[in-house]
Amino acid sequence: MGAVIEELTSFLHPDQVSQNETALDQHSHDESYHSVFPPFVVVYPNKTTEVQAIVKAACQHSIPIIPYGLGTSLEGHVIPYDSGITIDFSLMDTIIEVRNEDFLVKVQPGVTRSRLNKELKKHGLFFSVDPGADATLGGMAATNASGTTSVKYGIMRDQVRSLEVVTPSGEIIHTGNLAQKSSSGYNLNGLYVGSEGTLGCITELTLKVYGIPEYSMAARASFPTITDAVDAVVSILQAGIPIARVELVDEESIRQVNSFHHRTYREKPTLFLEFHGNEPGLRHDIDFTKEIVSDHLCEEMYFEEDHTAMVQLWEARHNLAYAYVHGNPGRKLMVTDVCVPISSLAGAIQHARERLNFHQLNGGILGHVGDGNYHALLMIDMEKEGELSRAELFNEEIVTYAINCGGTCTGEHGVGKGKMKYQELEHGEATQVMRQIKKAIDPKGIMNPNKLITM
Amino acid sequence: MGAVIEELTSFLHPDQVSQNETALDQHSHDESYHSVFPPFVVVYPNKTTEVQAIVKAACQHSIPIIPYGLGTSLEGHVIPYDSGITIDFSLMDTIIEVRNEDFLVKVQPGVTRSRLNKELKKHGLFFSVDPGADATLGGMAATNASGTTSVKYGIMRDQVRSLEVVTPSGEIIHTGNLAQKSSSGYNLNGLYVGSEGTLGCITELTLKVYGIPEYSMAARASFPTITDAVDAVVSILQAGIPIARVELVDEESIRQVNSFHHRTYREKPTLFLEFHGNEPGLRHDIDFTKEIVSDHLCEEMYFEEDHTAMVQLWEARHNLAYAYVHGNPGRKLMVTDVCVPISSLAGAIQHARERLNFHQLNGGILGHVGDGNYHALLMIDMEKEGELSRAELFNEEIVTYAINCGGTCTGEHGVGKGKMKYQELEHGEATQVMRQIKKAIDPKGIMNPNKLITM
Ligand SMILES: Cc1cc2nc3c(=O)[nH]c(=O)nc-3n(C[C@H](O)[C@H](O)[C@H](O)COP(=O)(O)OP(=O)(O)OC[C@H]3O[C@@H](n4cnc5c(N)ncnc54)[C@H](O)[C@@H]3O)c2cc1C
Ligand SMILES: Cc1cc2nc3c(=O)[nH]c(=O)nc-3n(C[C@H](O)[C@H](O)[C@H](O)COP(=O)(O)OP(=O)(O)OC[C@H]3O[C@@H](n4cnc5c(N)ncnc54)[C@H](O)[C@@H]3O)c2cc1C
Repeated sequence: MGAVIEELTSFLHPDQVSQNETALDQHSHDESYHSVFPPFVVVYPNKTTEVQAIVKAACQHSIPIIPYGLGTSLEGHVIPYDSGITIDFSLMDTIIEVRNEDFLVKVQPGVTRSRLNKELKKHGLFFSVDPGADATLGGMAATNASGTTSVKYGIMRDQVRSLEVVTPSGEIIHTGNLAQKSSSGYNLNGLYVGSEGTLGCITELTLKVYGIPEYSMAARASFPTITDAVDAVVSILQAGIPIARVELVDEESIRQVNSFHHRTYREKPTLFLEFHGNEPGLRHDIDFTKEIVSDHLCEEMYFEEDHTAMVQLWEARHNLAYAYVHGNPGRKLMVTDVCVPISSLAGAIQHARERLNFHQLNGGILGHVGDGNYHALLMIDMEKEGELSRAELFNEEIVTYAINCGGTCTGEHGVGKGKMKYQELEHGEATQVMRQIKKAIDPKGIMNPNKLITM
Repeated sequence: MGAVIEELTSFLHPDQVSQNETALDQHSHDESYHSVFPPFVVVYPNKTTEVQAIVKAACQHSIPIIPYGLGTSLEGHVIPYDSGITIDFSLMDTIIEVRNEDFLVKVQPGVTRSRLNKELKKHGLFFSVDPGADATLGGMAATNASGTTSVKYGIMRDQVRSLEVVTPSGEIIHTGNLAQKSSSGYNLNGLYVGSEGTLGCITELTLKVYGIPEYSMAARASFPTITDAVDAVVSILQAGIPIARVELVDEESIRQVNSFHHRTYREKPTLFLEFHGNEPGLRHDIDFTKEIVSDHLCEEMYFEEDHTAMVQLWEARHNLAYAYVHGNPGRKLMVTDVCVPISSLAGAIQHARERLNFHQLNGGILGHVGDGNYHALLMIDMEKEGELSRAELFNEEIVTYAINCGGTCTGEHGVGKGKMKYQELEHGEATQVMRQIKKAIDPKGIMNPNKLITM
């Protein structure tokens, strides 16, 4: 691999090529329980043509490339188990253009969602996808991330209008255009979103943004049981209320929030809700929602009246996993991530709770329940005999349950290394078509190898 | 090819295999000006396993397959220029399952959108995509169709949760699942939608449906000029009004409507609008819209008060192309179909109008302007020296204009044969990746060959 270092330093500044221990360590893990492994070298390109040159060098030497955003993924996505060159996109963090009239923004992949939103606010706009970690937009596109607002605004794939991609052979392509819709050619946008760095490096993104709604209102509603809360969500969706956010936070998770954020939220299964729209329409939606939740035995519905309280509510939701991490020092995070048809949600969550108890695992249940996507959040004591394997068994049980009722092993976190073993079960014969695609686009298998799909 | 007929009749009923002239004729053209060419044989499968056997036979004999829905496509998509077996899906027309609670429906590919909606109405549901022809859902998925409601509910690709597909080698795969979202594996759903029969045969579709809105209201607004009308649309979108439909119909097209449907609509550039929501929210949206259109010199805004009048309004819009066809017997239809970023829409339409005049072509301009998608609709006298070539030149000019401002050569009709020549211009290096995909999935090149992408 010495030869490739020499080649890399021939066109990159020495600061952009690092083999020091801190850099290798930092790029050897993600935020989960998966085992660590360092890259051979970390490079920090400044621009697309540098990425292109890096990829060409790697291609020529048949060395793996691992694109890296912020390393917040949860299934070992960025861990270089086959060694190789980690491309860290943190220097490519320019917000290139805000096209107000077209509700579009063009950014480099290293821009984080929080920084983008800070900039967009000046224009009265916002970007909707909000994973519970401050991820990069490149990473979010690569994992097809979603979040609390997806029930109304859609997932990452719905926001991507075009990507600039450096292909595994080092060509620069554009996967889409600026138009709202197109039936021209194969849908490369949709294919590259969620491809987890296995089909190329994303070097620029054109994304859809939205006007900040005229009026919005957030609320907390607490219920006697999780099932009541979930049934209420199903009824809200059935009623066609265009809810902007509806998040389930179970009793245990509310306790973590209260302790981490010094809140006094009622320690009961709770829905965090948000409504967007014009004022009269929204008041009508809220009244309807109040009726529905009370039909489902809601014990208290509390509306956050001012902007600060609303922000605090969503901050508490977004930091939930970190609250768990903080409350369980030394342990490692495992987050399950199935998504099921909404009619199967209550049963799926009940099953998950039973299996948690059965395996004597401590964990919270929460999630983007408006989409049928929920997480069991476990803090694993890696030293404790058998705990990891019980957690893995539990994960497998709920994945199997979800797939059996027509769902998916991952609603938003992606496959990475951790969920490769479920791909055949979920996709059957279609995995063969996926392999054909991977092989066609990356014949040498250098892009994030042994992730997403076994070859 | 005789051997393949023998093979086909070994597992299909004689009625399902036709070489009679009427059948061959019917499958030799679409609804446009493209030149005709007959298939070698037409087959009518009843079920997926029959499709599979047909594909396997064709694959073995290396004979082209052309999937066929209703043949309403406009770019020569279904014309078997290389001869081959046309698979007509009209017998596969079962609505398999309506999953009310999940807002999902499972259908065979030959079900038409109108029949689906008739069935869904019984459940208080509707399917949103509504091309101006009563197409099959298989054909609509294969072309990534859209229509008047896409500005609110999205395009065909947004509705497809999963497809059953017979691949070019005769395997049966499923491209998705029943969950609202997934980050598992490569996005085959999105790839197969819009693939125009070049990557396999769609044999079953699982589609998203919607609750019929609590309240809806339709209106016509007429303006002194097209530019005023388009500017009003841009302002409505800027204001964040969640409009459900907003269609431009120019003066010439209103004349066709009046003559075909015996209406007395004001013969001025007109917007057809529709609002969906709860009553107070919708009244607020309408008041806001009234202000906006009057700022743009709207001369008259007329609300259709009852359901029948609303239905008639959209019937007039949907039948617009047929009104032109009816009004111009013996001529052939050419419909341009570019889509541009909304900020370029007014300029693009003005340019189109100028070029129509320059080429002395008669045509109307209309379209789904809320998406930036408009059509110039030409009735071509194929006997008239030079008319077709002037129309083709005109088409090329507006395609070039659209691509230059970041748009696409086809917003919804697809590539077929007619728009293959623009693929390199629009997609550049990305066409190479498209070729890699086609080659990987259909190595023998039997699926609808020489459509969508040159190999
Ligand atoms: C506390 C916590 C909460 C979370 N909550 C959510 C949530 O609500 N929803 C959700 O969807 N996810 C969530 N996640 C997971 C994670 O935040 C997302 O997967 C996120 O999209 C990862 O972004 P990143 O920038 O950290 O990417 P990384 O972790 O660095 O990379 C992720 C994948 O993308 C690839 N990649 C990165 N950049 C590029 C590029 N430029 N080109 C090509 N490939 C690239 C990598 O190779 C890797 O496969 C959470 C994670 C944590 C730790
Ligand atoms: C008057 C008029 C108005 C129109 N308005 C619109 C509009 O508003 N929006 C719009 O999007 N389009 C519009 N169109 C175009 C056309 O209706 C659409 O393209 C429609 O989706 C075609 O459906 P079809 O069933 O007729 O398919 P066909 O024309 O039979 O086939 C279209 C393509 O799909 C493939 N295909 C068909 N069935 C399958 C299958 N089961 N598996 C795999 N491939 C298959 C075919 O091979 C072909 O490539 C209009 C057409 C006309 C004539």
